[in-house]
Amino acid sequence: MNTEYEEKYIETKYLTLDKKIELDCGKSLENITVAYETYGNLNEKGDNAILVLHALTGDAHAAGYHKGDKKPGWWDNMIGSGKAFDTDKYFVICSNILGGCKGTTGPCSINSQTGKEWALDFPIITIEDTVKVQKALIDALNIKKIIVAGGSMGGMQAIEWSISYPEYVKKTILIATAPRLSAQNIAFNAVARNAILSDKNFNNGNYYGKESPEKGLAIARMIGHITYLSEDAMHNKFARKLQNKSKLDFDFNVEFQVESYLEHQGQIFVDRFDANSYLYISRACDYFDIAQKNGSLENAFSKTNSEFLVICFSSDWLFPPSQSQEIVNALMKTGKDVSFLQIESPAGHDAFLLEFEAQTKVIKSFLI
Amino acid sequence: MNTEYEEKYIETKYLTLDKKIELDCGKSLENITVAYETYGNLNEKGDNAILVLHALTGDAHAAGYHKGDKKPGWWDNMIGSGKAFDTDKYFVICSNILGGCKGTTGPCSINSQTGKEWALDFPIITIEDTVKVQKALIDALNIKKIIVAGGSMGGMQAIEWSISYPEYVKKTILIATAPRLSAQNIAFNAVARNAILSDKNFNNGNYYGKESPEKGLAIARMIGHITYLSEDAMHNKFARKLQNKSKLDFDFNVEFQVESYLEHQGQIFVDRFDANSYLYISRACDYFDIAQKNGSLENAFSKTNSEFLVICFSSDWLFPPSQSQEIVNALMKTGKDVSFLQIESPAGHDAFLLEFEAQTKVIKSFLI
Repeated sequence: MNTEYEEKYIETKYLTLDKKIELDCGKSLENITVAYETYGNLNEKGDNAILVLHALTGDAHAAGYHKGDKKPGWWDNMIGSGKAFDTDKYFVICSNILGGCKGTTGPCSINSQTGKEWALDFPIITIEDTVKVQKALIDALNIKKIIVAGGSMGGMQAIEWSISYPEYVKKTILIATAPRLSAQNIAFNAVARNAILSDKNFNNGNYYGKESPEKGLAIARMIGHITYLSEDAMHNKFARKLQNKSKLDFDFNVEFQVESYLEHQGQIFVDRFDANSYLYISRACDYFDIAQKNGSLENAFSKTNSEFLVICFSSDWLFPPSQSQEIVNALMKTGKDVSFLQIESPAGHDAFLLEFEAQTKVIKSFLI
Repeated sequence: MNTEYEEKYIETKYLTLDKKIELDCGKSLENITVAYETYGNLNEKGDNAILVLHALTGDAHAAGYHKGDKKPGWWDNMIGSGKAFDTDKYFVICSNILGGCKGTTGPCSINSQTGKEWALDFPIITIEDTVKVQKALIDALNIKKIIVAGGSMGGMQAIEWSISYPEYVKKTILIATAPRLSAQNIAFNAVARNAILSDKNFNNGNYYGKESPEKGLAIARMIGHITYLSEDAMHNKFARKLQNKSKLDFDFNVEFQVESYLEHQGQIFVDRFDANSYLYISRACDYFDIAQKNGSLENAFSKTNSEFLVICFSSDWLFPPSQSQEIVNALMKTGKDVSFLQIESPAGHDAFLLEFEAQTKVIKSFLI
């Protein structure tokens, strides 16, 4: 267990926004609750904050231990005393995304107008909408200047922060991300959503208190996990090894270790995630396209006043290095200050959660 | 319409084997019916035959037109007068695989012992088993020497032919194939099968005459189609273009063209394919591993007396060029005669069905 938090457990905090949030879809949401955690202390000027932005299925619990937990938050190896996001110097914040299922208002929250869960009556959200909610949280916390950092979908949110709030964002750290999903990315999301929507328990999203669409959600997660690992990583981890047997059983149960791994990932995921949230958040990712919205990537980035650090991983085929390079090229064309690092890693997209030593080194230099 | 077949329609023929086939799983099958088609004429010596082997969801109808059909067989641009597999010189045969749903005995066939469809009582099959059935067909047709050719799973069968029947196989053409599925390949198959097995209509495989597991099978197909196209091909074909609209609807229906494409592919597939066959044939692919079975790839290929032509495609990430290179290296180490061509193509795995000009050229040279 991480000694830093041995005596001091982390608790998730909740803030209900008094501001109505106008959404890209044309609807609006009131009384949004935001679940968030903070690590370290905000200075008097309110300018030492780092907003850490989570990926598709992440949550506000980025670091430290909740009471009774055996595992720390999802980016604990990056956030803490002396770490990449050094809590001795910085006030680190992480909030659950709008549409999520980990404390922030989402489809599994109660719609006060009906007294029931929103389900599919929840308005469709965009990455831009989620950032608006984060901005309201940051304002409520009296933060005046901010550094934003995120991997994968978290990186998309960081991009959006940098161009929507240029007066706030000093530095932006983009990890294993892209300025838009590719056709292949959208295709994987479409199949994952299709699996959820086709589940016999989906019931048009109204499954709360009943059997939930666990099989569909597990399939969505299995597809996700294939894309998070590189082919090499999968080979190194599993190759064609059999699962607890020396010869084939000749049936449709688990024969190979990789099948067991995927089934396990699917199973543990359905215990912690809401299928409707998966629909909404993956859809928000599909929609994100700052070049389309602003005419070009250069136009988009011309709005920012931030310095940038862009990190990608050699074997990431979900958000490949070429997409990070595209961001870097556009930033350079608009005269922005940008550092770029491609980390050689066999871990695929998951590298942003695993390769913390290389990331720590470069992030520390960037934050000086 | 292809003039060659304007006046002469192709018909699928059927042969019921009088031989019992012993299967790798330990069970056996009797009275197997094989659906097959032939193009061109067998010579007197019975040595001008080419056995064309189909991929996962293919069938015996490789070339020409069935009466009333608007589209020809799946490899029509490769089989015919003057084509790569020249029916003026060769007697070309294609049969539906054991376990299939296009005329050859499979899980949707009637089990004579029960009078009902086999469903999941059908024995588990392997690539080796399917080749045994093909061998029985070839014997029944009085063929003495053979050339085998196949792409993807068809290539796996061609490999198996070359090492199991060295006295028969003169030449072997392997296209976009591999000596085994990778962990990532198995993972995709596992998710596809999971979608079928999870469908509310699956009913342990006993869905014949009732609603079939169409949604699960469509999801399996959608996953397949993502892997058949390269990321570049998907980008060139769809990018992020919207489907018949100029702005987003903000919902979970089809927004992007790539979503529409996948849904369409899923829909047309369920009309032509049986979900149980998908389970059996994809599992057979999982199991195929000649290196594991023979101790090494070199040991496996040391058994063959065939000449080889190995073709792969630069953007194929399902069966990437490195796997073809591995086959070539093993063949060279065992002193076999092997030609190798990597075709530069953006089409991904589908290239073996599309890049017929480049393939025709090299196959014609190889067959001289």
